[in-house]
Amino acid sequence: MPRTNVLSGSVRPIHTHSTAREIHSSVRESNPRMATHLLSSSSSTICSSRFNQIPNSIHAFIHPVKPYNLTSNSQNPKRCSSIPTNLACLCSKSKLSCHSTTTKAVISEIPYQNQKYSKIGALSVGPIPSAKLLESVEIAAKTGAQVVMEAVNKPRNISYKGLTDLVTDTDKMSEVAILSVVRKNFPDHLILGEEGGVIGDSSSDYLWCIDPLDGTTNFAHGYPSFAVSVGVLFRGKPAAAAVVEFVGGAMCWNTRIFSAVAGGGAFCNGQKIHVSQTDKVERSLLVTGFGYEHDDPWATNMNLFKEFTDISRGVRRLGAAAVDMCHVALGIVEAYWEYRLKPWDMAAGVLIVEEAGGTVSRMDGGNFTVFDRSLLVSNGILHAKLLEKIGVATEELKGKGIDFSLWYKPNDYNTEL
Amino acid sequence: MPRTNVLSGSVRPIHTHSTAREIHSSVRESNPRMATHLLSSSSSTICSSRFNQIPNSIHAFIHPVKPYNLTSNSQNPKRCSSIPTNLACLCSKSKLSCHSTTTKAVISEIPYQNQKYSKIGALSVGPIPSAKLLESVEIAAKTGAQVVMEAVNKPRNISYKGLTDLVTDTDKMSEVAILSVVRKNFPDHLILGEEGGVIGDSSSDYLWCIDPLDGTTNFAHGYPSFAVSVGVLFRGKPAAAAVVEFVGGAMCWNTRIFSAVAGGGAFCNGQKIHVSQTDKVERSLLVTGFGYEHDDPWATNMNLFKEFTDISRGVRRLGAAAVDMCHVALGIVEAYWEYRLKPWDMAAGVLIVEEAGGTVSRMDGGNFTVFDRSLLVSNGILHAKLLEKIGVATEELKGKGIDFSLWYKPNDYNTEL
Repeated sequence: MPRTNVLSGSVRPIHTHSTAREIHSSVRESNPRMATHLLSSSSSTICSSRFNQIPNSIHAFIHPVKPYNLTSNSQNPKRCSSIPTNLACLCSKSKLSCHSTTTKAVISEIPYQNQKYSKIGALSVGPIPSAKLLESVEIAAKTGAQVVMEAVNKPRNISYKGLTDLVTDTDKMSEVAILSVVRKNFPDHLILGEEGGVIGDSSSDYLWCIDPLDGTTNFAHGYPSFAVSVGVLFRGKPAAAAVVEFVGGAMCWNTRIFSAVAGGGAFCNGQKIHVSQTDKVERSLLVTGFGYEHDDPWATNMNLFKEFTDISRGVRRLGAAAVDMCHVALGIVEAYWEYRLKPWDMAAGVLIVEEAGGTVSRMDGGNFTVFDRSLLVSNGILHAKLLEKIGVATEELKGKGIDFSLWYKPNDYNTEL
Repeated sequence: MPRTNVLSGSVRPIHTHSTAREIHSSVRESNPRMATHLLSSSSSTICSSRFNQIPNSIHAFIHPVKPYNLTSNSQNPKRCSSIPTNLACLCSKSKLSCHSTTTKAVISEIPYQNQKYSKIGALSVGPIPSAKLLESVEIAAKTGAQVVMEAVNKPRNISYKGLTDLVTDTDKMSEVAILSVVRKNFPDHLILGEEGGVIGDSSSDYLWCIDPLDGTTNFAHGYPSFAVSVGVLFRGKPAAAAVVEFVGGAMCWNTRIFSAVAGGGAFCNGQKIHVSQTDKVERSLLVTGFGYEHDDPWATNMNLFKEFTDISRGVRRLGAAAVDMCHVALGIVEAYWEYRLKPWDMAAGVLIVEEAGGTVSRMDGGNFTVFDRSLLVSNGILHAKLLEKIGVATEELKGKGIDFSLWYKPNDYNTEL
C-alpha cells in the first residue's frame, strides 16, 4: 500500500461537540485534494471519518455507541440519516464474542473482592523474540515522538486554520513515521492506526495498535501531557508496548518512555517501575477521562468523578489515556478508568500497568480485551474497592441497554480471546 | 521572633475528608514536643490548626465557611462543639469592607459582557524599586524550590508515617527557607505563610503571602504539578510575584519559574508570556479545582465542571492553584476558577495572570482581592462568557446564604482596598 494512502485514510469518530477532533474533520473538509485521493483508493482496508466514504469494514469506528440502531441517534439525526443502512456494523464476529450479556450474572455471583481478574498480557509473544519486539515498539514510539517534538514549540497563538494544520499534520506525520518503522521490520503484520485505519495482512497473528498523538487537545493547547503510544498484540493480547510521554511544557519540554513486554516487567527510561502499594481509597489519588461522546456513560462518569473526588485524595483529569495509565504503572496515581476508549488508546498502556504489577479489567469488572468499550486499571490492591462504585454504575448502564459489546476487531484477525 | 516559632505555628484548616492535609494534622498530633512548644509561644501572632490552641486573631482560618454560626456546622458537629464561642471570627474589620452584600445588585444591573473588571495589581509598588522587589520574590521562591527539589525523588512507596514526615518536613523546611530570605531582606515586612501563620510588623505596607508547597497532594504522590508560590502585596494589592512550578515527574523532574511585577509584564524563565487569544468557549481548554471542604460551593463547582466539560474542549483538574493560574498566563488554558482558596494560594498567580494580559475577578464577577473566597482568572476575552455560568451559579450560592465575605485579612494591615 502506498504511503500516501495511509495519510488520506482516517478512522476518527465524528463528534457532536466542538473539540480538538473538530480540527481534524474541518481540515479534511477544506482539503478536496485529500478527499479525491481517498475516493480513488483501491484498498478496502483504508478507512475514513467521512460518512459517505465509509467502507463496510470500518463502520463500527464511527458508531461505537449504538451500531444496531442507526436512526435512533437523536443527538445528531442529520448525520445519522446520511448513513446508508447497509453500512451497519459488520464486526459481527466480534459481537458474537461479546461478554456483556453474561457478565452481570457472573458479577452478581462473585463479589468484586473475591473476583479473579484475568491477565490481559499475551502468554506467548509468538515467534519474534521478546527483546526484538520490545526494541521494535520502542523505536516505533520514539520515531513518532521525534515528529511530535519538532512541533511542540511551534506557535499556538495563531489562526484557527493554522492550529488546525499544525495538529493534523503532526498527528499524521507521526503515524506515517511509526508505520514506516513497523512495515520495514514486519511487512506482513496487521496495523490499526488512529489516523490510517487498518492496513496489512489480517491473517497475521500480530496486530499493531498505534496512537500517533494521544491527548490531541492537550497538544493543540501546548498543555502537558500527551503521548505517542504503540502496542503490539499477539493473537489479540498485548505482547509489547511503548509510550513516549511529553512532559514539562513551554521552556522545558522533555520526554520519558514507558515500555513493557509480556512477562518481562515494565520500565520508565529503562528503570523498572511498580504500581503503588496504597490500600485505602481515602489515601488514593485517582484519574479519569471523559470522551467526546456526551452520552449516558459520560454522565455516569461525571457522577463517579464526583463520588471519588468526595472520598479519595482527589481525581485528576489530565486528558491523555496512555499517559494516565503510565502514571498508574509508575505508582503516582492508584487507578484510572474511562468509557469509550479505542484499541490504540489502550493497547500499550494496559500492558505497562499489568507488567508494573497492576490489574486491568473492564469497568464492570469483567475480563478486558483491547477491543472493549471500558477500562479500569489500578494498583490491584484497590481494584475490588473501586469496582464497588465503578462496577455497579456500569452494570446500571448495561441494565439501561447501553452497548458494551466489543467495539471493533479487525475482520478475520485471529485471536485467542 | 525565633525561627523555631515559625515552624511550630500553622494555619492549615482542619478537614472533614481524608486528604494530604490529613498527613499534616496527624503528624502534629503525634508530635507532643511540637505541641508543647506551640503552647509555650509568647507571640500572639503565631497560629495553630489545633482548635484548643487557636489565638483569636486567626480563627477565620479554620472557619472560612460560616464563621458567625459555629454550632450550625452539621457536617462536623463534634469538632465545632469543641470550639469556644469567644473565638468567633475577629476579622470584623475585613468583614466591614466585605462587598458580598452589595455585589449582587451591581451584577444584576450590569451584564457581564459590559462589566469592567478592576485591575488587581498594585498601582504603586511603594518605596522599594520594582526590580528589587521582583528579584526578591524570585530568590525567595527559588530558595523554597531548592528544598522541595531535594525531596521529590525520595521514595514514596514507604510507610504512611514515612510519607507523612516527608511531606510535612518538606512543607515546613521550604517555608523556613523562604522566610529566611524575606526577613533578611525586609525584616519589618508582614508575612502570611501557609505553615507559619502571620508574623512581622502589621503596620508594614508590605504583606508577603507564601505557599511553600502548593499542590501538597500531588507532591505526596510524586504527581506533577506542584509549586512554590510567593507573592508580595503593597497596601493589599499584588506588587510582585514568583511561582516555581515542578514539572515532569520521576526520571525527568524539572522546574520553570513564572514571575511578574505590577505594571512590568509577566515572564516564564525570563521570557515574556501572554494569555491566549481564544475567543470561543467551545474552543477553550479550562481548569478548575475542588477544595478540601465538601460544602455547597464544592457541589456547585461539580456542576460547573460538568457544564463546561460539555461545552468546551475540556476541563482539566490538575490540583495546584498557583500552577493552574500560571498555565492561564502562559496561554495553554483559557481560564481557571475555584472556590475557597486562601491568600497564599492566590497572591502570586493572580498578578502573573493579569500581567500576562488576563482578567481576574471573583466568581460572582465582582472586584477581587487576595482575601476573597473565590477566584476566576481568564484570558480576558472569555471572562464575561464564562461568568454567564460561573457568576450565576455563585449568585445562587449567595442567595442561599453562603458566606462570600472576605475570608481573612491580618488585623491592622493597612490596605487601599
